[in-house]
Amino acid sequence: MASVIQRIETGKEEAIKLLAEAVAIKSVSARSDTRNEVVRMAEWIVGQIGSKCKESKVWLEEIEGTETFSDGTTQKYPPLVFAEIGSIDPKKKTLLIYAHYDVQPAERSDGWDTDPWVLTRVGDQLRGRGSTDDKGPLVGWLQVFNLYNEENRDLPVNVKLVLEGMEESGSVGFDKTIEKHQAKNPEWWSSCDWCVVSDNYWLGTEKPCLSYGLRGVTCCELAIEGPSCDLHSGVYGGAVFQPVDDLIYVMSKLKGADGNSLIPGIMEEVAPVTAEERGMYENLTFDIDDFKRQIGCDELRSKDKVQILMDRWRNPSVSLHGIQGAYSEPGFKTVIPRKVIGKFSMRTVPNQTGENVTRRIREYVDKLMNERTAKGETSNKWSLTVESGNWFYVDPLKSDVFKAAHEAIKQVWGVEPDYTREGGSIPVTVTLSKLTKKDLCLIPMGRSDDGAHSQNEKIDCANYIEGMKVFVAFLENLKKF
Amino acid sequence: MASVIQRIETGKEEAIKLLAEAVAIKSVSARSDTRNEVVRMAEWIVGQIGSKCKESKVWLEEIEGTETFSDGTTQKYPPLVFAEIGSIDPKKKTLLIYAHYDVQPAERSDGWDTDPWVLTRVGDQLRGRGSTDDKGPLVGWLQVFNLYNEENRDLPVNVKLVLEGMEESGSVGFDKTIEKHQAKNPEWWSSCDWCVVSDNYWLGTEKPCLSYGLRGVTCCELAIEGPSCDLHSGVYGGAVFQPVDDLIYVMSKLKGADGNSLIPGIMEEVAPVTAEERGMYENLTFDIDDFKRQIGCDELRSKDKVQILMDRWRNPSVSLHGIQGAYSEPGFKTVIPRKVIGKFSMRTVPNQTGENVTRRIREYVDKLMNERTAKGETSNKWSLTVESGNWFYVDPLKSDVFKAAHEAIKQVWGVEPDYTREGGSIPVTVTLSKLTKKDLCLIPMGRSDDGAHSQNEKIDCANYIEGMKVFVAFLENLKKF
Repeated sequence: MASVIQRIETGKEEAIKLLAEAVAIKSVSARSDTRNEVVRMAEWIVGQIGSKCKESKVWLEEIEGTETFSDGTTQKYPPLVFAEIGSIDPKKKTLLIYAHYDVQPAERSDGWDTDPWVLTRVGDQLRGRGSTDDKGPLVGWLQVFNLYNEENRDLPVNVKLVLEGMEESGSVGFDKTIEKHQAKNPEWWSSCDWCVVSDNYWLGTEKPCLSYGLRGVTCCELAIEGPSCDLHSGVYGGAVFQPVDDLIYVMSKLKGADGNSLIPGIMEEVAPVTAEERGMYENLTFDIDDFKRQIGCDELRSKDKVQILMDRWRNPSVSLHGIQGAYSEPGFKTVIPRKVIGKFSMRTVPNQTGENVTRRIREYVDKLMNERTAKGETSNKWSLTVESGNWFYVDPLKSDVFKAAHEAIKQVWGVEPDYTREGGSIPVTVTLSKLTKKDLCLIPMGRSDDGAHSQNEKIDCANYIEGMKVFVAFLENLKKF
Repeated sequence: MASVIQRIETGKEEAIKLLAEAVAIKSVSARSDTRNEVVRMAEWIVGQIGSKCKESKVWLEEIEGTETFSDGTTQKYPPLVFAEIGSIDPKKKTLLIYAHYDVQPAERSDGWDTDPWVLTRVGDQLRGRGSTDDKGPLVGWLQVFNLYNEENRDLPVNVKLVLEGMEESGSVGFDKTIEKHQAKNPEWWSSCDWCVVSDNYWLGTEKPCLSYGLRGVTCCELAIEGPSCDLHSGVYGGAVFQPVDDLIYVMSKLKGADGNSLIPGIMEEVAPVTAEERGMYENLTFDIDDFKRQIGCDELRSKDKVQILMDRWRNPSVSLHGIQGAYSEPGFKTVIPRKVIGKFSMRTVPNQTGENVTRRIREYVDKLMNERTAKGETSNKWSLTVESGNWFYVDPLKSDVFKAAHEAIKQVWGVEPDYTREGGSIPVTVTLSKLTKKDLCLIPMGRSDDGAHSQNEKIDCANYIEGMKVFVAFLENLKKF
């Protein structure tokens, strides 16, 4: 291991040059005029693995279907890149690595200080679109494989890759394509022992962390429908039951003044906080003022660090997102919309289940609307659509993949990593842990202030270089299990 | 009078031909590619009056400024057409007539059964864009003047016209232009004794009516602002005060479950219903089932005719129109919007005043938000914008212009007209009654099912022809006062 780590240290410039090559490819999946660049990015990866990793297998899996863009063009989706790095040794255990090779859109005129497609060194930062999300981690892994190869050393464990080119556009086709692959090659998936994803960030800017959980999300659309056409609020206001009234009523009953869900039974299913879990939050490095500054909030619902972290990571939360079909433009239109659709969601956590959450929301909304109808307060029709996504959670203290990653971070950074969760949902983690039925770990490379989807996206040089060393140490540590 | 009425009867086809000429001019004010057609329509009117009404004066008053359309072109506004029909006799009283000569957009492909720009007879209907809104009434007046002229008869009263070409596009520049004219020629306005507007419809399809009142409208925008940027509901939901929560809370407190305003003091200012007023509603011809069918509502807030009419015309009503800044597209975006603007309005009635309504809404919203803030339920900032428009109302039983119109309808249609109000706001009526300080009457020509802004807009042949007779009788009746 020491020799590879040594090569990372001496080969810094080479690694940065490789990242610059990747950043220069405008692999924006959301735009029709760059869709071919996403494909070119896939080909670049194939070229890297094919030319630099001896005895590797690398292939593309096409995503079915086509996408019609708003400019009228219809194009194929960028493929998934599958790979096995070096020859698979059945005596070794196997790690499955996920990353994505597409990026968010970026224009210099969006407010970038440098060309987003030219990796530019500003102080200790490497600036460029995709530098941290997710080309930094992806190229970091490729460079690690190169170096093992140049050192003529076998990888400590078998490594399989699944790389995606549609992540920034909702991961269209990802689940279907890998499920299809699994149906043909179940053994390819079942022989994986662990999964690792590097598509997240440190909790702050100072200290590395490992993520062991995400919240799920249950998305709801409540449609309320009344008259057969939009009505003039002057001519009809007062006489008719206005669908927006019902919707605002129901939406106002979803959360209490304290911000917590009012949906009966929801909190009963949430796993109680153990002293051990609480201890983990207490020990975390988290600067409340920094956090408030980052998002521009004067106050948060709580002033307590542990409570804030639990509110973000381990408590369900309801968000009201907006209304479709009502007037939403600047200025004024005195309309009574005939049909409105309220959008709200709940972030879900252990031990909630999608089934129960769905049922409880449905029962509650029906109860509210049935009451209103029975009292003659409305005659509008309603229908609720609920889509429930899973969450991902693994016990970090019992998981080998966590132990290996923990140790690697300690070896490279000289500190114990924080154990964190993410409040959001990274669907690919759920897909992968479902498919492999193995433990998964999120190892972030960048920091919380990298500006993943913003102007001047960057990765700190230290995070990129030390991050590669963490990858090496991680692989070597996995060998022990 | 008999001879002119006789000429209307024998000259039906001629009058329809004249309306067809007007309908053929695509005077859509909202579109850049038809703006010149609106101007052509003004010129057509000038030509009609100039060539057919002896000793008339007709001129254009330009609206200041220009409009830049979404296609990038910048164009002038269509002018106001001013006219005096025949020579003004200072011994006679003077009627001011308003109409508009622009129309709503129309394409055959919108679902028209016939070419919208070719006045087409279908049974007893004359179909075409503008046939009822507002070219029917406008051309009806012009034809009446023609016939007086052909009969070599003076008009019974002096007649002045103000015709607008931007009515369907928010009457841009109307108020300013006539105020400017009044500043130069105050006497032109003060010498008017009555105003009449024909830009409304019968209450139903069977019986003529006269309108003596409109509701005003107070429009409110409540902006709630929190974080400095939109936030991911997964990453931040639970920890932050979400601006949509505050907005939904306040909007849910504006109306009670019974649909009435919850804003303190609002109902106290509403004029009590007298037995006389109630009697007027009771006597009206209004078919509830017809009304429900027209707007596609199964149920209304009330099953009682009088209550329904009062809810539409003489009670204030609150409508929630929508939210700007929240997610309003199809599908899902799990966003916490940083700033949202709720839109709601109140229809106002005698004896409410704009000042009091504004103050009461402001005090109430501030109280709700201050309470929330004091209890630590939010730290978001709010600001309320209130714009208060006037209403128009005249006592029909005491007004000469109403008596003349009432008598005219009785003479022509053989029935007593219903006295109605409109729930909406026709701003021009308020402007004209303010400017002249004289009584105003709305005399509808068409029926409630004419589809003014819809496909297959029509005017019934009978309404067009008898409507002209009503105009003649109205002029003759005014002579008596």
